[in-house]
Amino acid sequence: MKKLINNPTYVVEEMIEGYVKAHPHHVKLLAENARSIVTAKVTRDGKVGVLIGGGSGHEPAFMGYVGEGMADGVAVGNIFASPPPDPILEATKAIDKGEGVVYIYGNYAGDLMNFGMAAELADLESGIKVGSVIVTDDVASAPKEEKEKRRGIAGEFFVTKAAGAAADKGFSFDDVVRIAQKANDYTRTMGVGLSPCSLPQTGKPSFELEENEMEIGLGHHGEPGIEKGELQPADQVVDRLVNDILEDMPIESGAKVAVLVNGLGSTTRMELYIMYRRVEQLLTEKGIEIHRSYVGDYSTSLEMGGASVSIMNLDEELAELVDYPADCPMYVQK
Amino acid sequence: MKKLINNPTYVVEEMIEGYVKAHPHHVKLLAENARSIVTAKVTRDGKVGVLIGGGSGHEPAFMGYVGEGMADGVAVGNIFASPPPDPILEATKAIDKGEGVVYIYGNYAGDLMNFGMAAELADLESGIKVGSVIVTDDVASAPKEEKEKRRGIAGEFFVTKAAGAAADKGFSFDDVVRIAQKANDYTRTMGVGLSPCSLPQTGKPSFELEENEMEIGLGHHGEPGIEKGELQPADQVVDRLVNDILEDMPIESGAKVAVLVNGLGSTTRMELYIMYRRVEQLLTEKGIEIHRSYVGDYSTSLEMGGASVSIMNLDEELAELVDYPADCPMYVQK
Repeated sequence: MKKLINNPTYVVEEMIEGYVKAHPHHVKLLAENARSIVTAKVTRDGKVGVLIGGGSGHEPAFMGYVGEGMADGVAVGNIFASPPPDPILEATKAIDKGEGVVYIYGNYAGDLMNFGMAAELADLESGIKVGSVIVTDDVASAPKEEKEKRRGIAGEFFVTKAAGAAADKGFSFDDVVRIAQKANDYTRTMGVGLSPCSLPQTGKPSFELEENEMEIGLGHHGEPGIEKGELQPADQVVDRLVNDILEDMPIESGAKVAVLVNGLGSTTRMELYIMYRRVEQLLTEKGIEIHRSYVGDYSTSLEMGGASVSIMNLDEELAELVDYPADCPMYVQK
Repeated sequence: MKKLINNPTYVVEEMIEGYVKAHPHHVKLLAENARSIVTAKVTRDGKVGVLIGGGSGHEPAFMGYVGEGMADGVAVGNIFASPPPDPILEATKAIDKGEGVVYIYGNYAGDLMNFGMAAELADLESGIKVGSVIVTDDVASAPKEEKEKRRGIAGEFFVTKAAGAAADKGFSFDDVVRIAQKANDYTRTMGVGLSPCSLPQTGKPSFELEENEMEIGLGHHGEPGIEKGELQPADQVVDRLVNDILEDMPIESGAKVAVLVNGLGSTTRMELYIMYRRVEQLLTEKGIEIHRSYVGDYSTSLEMGGASVSIMNLDEELAELVDYPADCPMYVQK
């Protein structure tokens, strides 16, 4: 697959360089580590820090979500690979304002190990209190009884949104952790894959699907899903995704939710809005009120084809946090 | 090519339905015409209206740019086809606040005919004064001496941004027209195509390129470019695009510009930021200051692969308008 890149070895470095140059009023690269990006704004003393991170290739996740009302810093890994402890640790030190830092990241072995190690080092070296919330929104990745084994995918946007807003509003360390955990507990995602992406280094497709085939529950690094089959019309695909979500996390009539219809990379806005149309129909039929909706590329897998639907069940506290404004290079909410 | 759609005949209707449902606080569909979308906000009496439109398939352009600080309404055509006069006329009537409406659209035969006809009818039927600014930013589409023959592509974002801000700030009809015209005069775009898109109705690729081939100057409906050749490294591609722009519109050292690195559909943010990195290097070398930058999908061609670089030369007036905030469903600026 063709890509507009230079040397495949330096794609992440060059992306970071371009990113920081493009948004100098929003973000800056730490002198201490070339994979640590933090907000360019001065945050107030006593603000709980929010740190995100993970592999590259999911842009706007994660680096695009550093800014007011979202994260204070991000550690950037290689493509589809966890950042090592160093950039996580340096970003932690840079964003701590005396009240600790909350890590939010997806449930992957490498991230667990590296963020875990950074958390220990932050405490040992600098006495910084670190809390961690592991995102596990992908319904297809493990059965209900083993929710702790589930992977984190697009729903991490909601977790970051809620925790970032809470921290910005002046919530305590414990409360930011509690909010992030609640946002994760109340969020479910189901995805569908249509076509693979390719890594710059290899140029080879990340998985194979026949022309006219789709895969339900495909992971966002190409991890196997739960069902391959013939491509169905969008409405039927959405019915499946939403029903799987609601079966896993029943939502009462009268409840409020936030909805994210997320493109994986090469899926058009046209398709995403056609999907949203059906999500709205289904939820309205069930008496569920969509309090706020997001449609677009929020967490991609390079140029993968496909989409996911995330639903976050909202209590009053989460609804307020979802409505809170944000100002990041790749996401702004008034 | 696989798509998440239902019946190909109704993709535009279903997209519009999803779009309006997803953003009820921002936009509404006119009861008078199913292809006319206008702002849901009440605009003040005497505000000059800004109306955009064109074929579908370029999302976020054009429907995504209705909102405060941008357009008041949009007429939505079929995929890659101009909207007929009716939705343009109805949107014109809906957004006129007594001081006239300024049309902004790309230089294509169908748009010229249909927007022209709507402008006449608006005057005849309702006495609404209409001004038109035709976007002609695509350097590759005609030689310098025939700039009026050039097509409009991603640079239309800058024209809408400047005119929308001017109208919101209370500029007069004549001044909004003047600003839109100046923004177009001061904007140039050069694009590169890597891979085709396919129309939902046919499923067939819009053009053909060999694996490892690129096409400089490819139009955003697949119109032929000016040079096919082997895919080059991103830096070389950007050098070509930026040099062609600067040759066509020389920019003095010390000048300020706005830059847009736009993805055509399936090009990753990683690639776009790698391209931006090089744009910034080139302009900085020449002493040109990037006042504000935009990197992402601002005007697509369904899932086409490739990107474009737009540069708007800024005087003080345009710089202020570029900085003005905006709040649209697919684009927010604080």
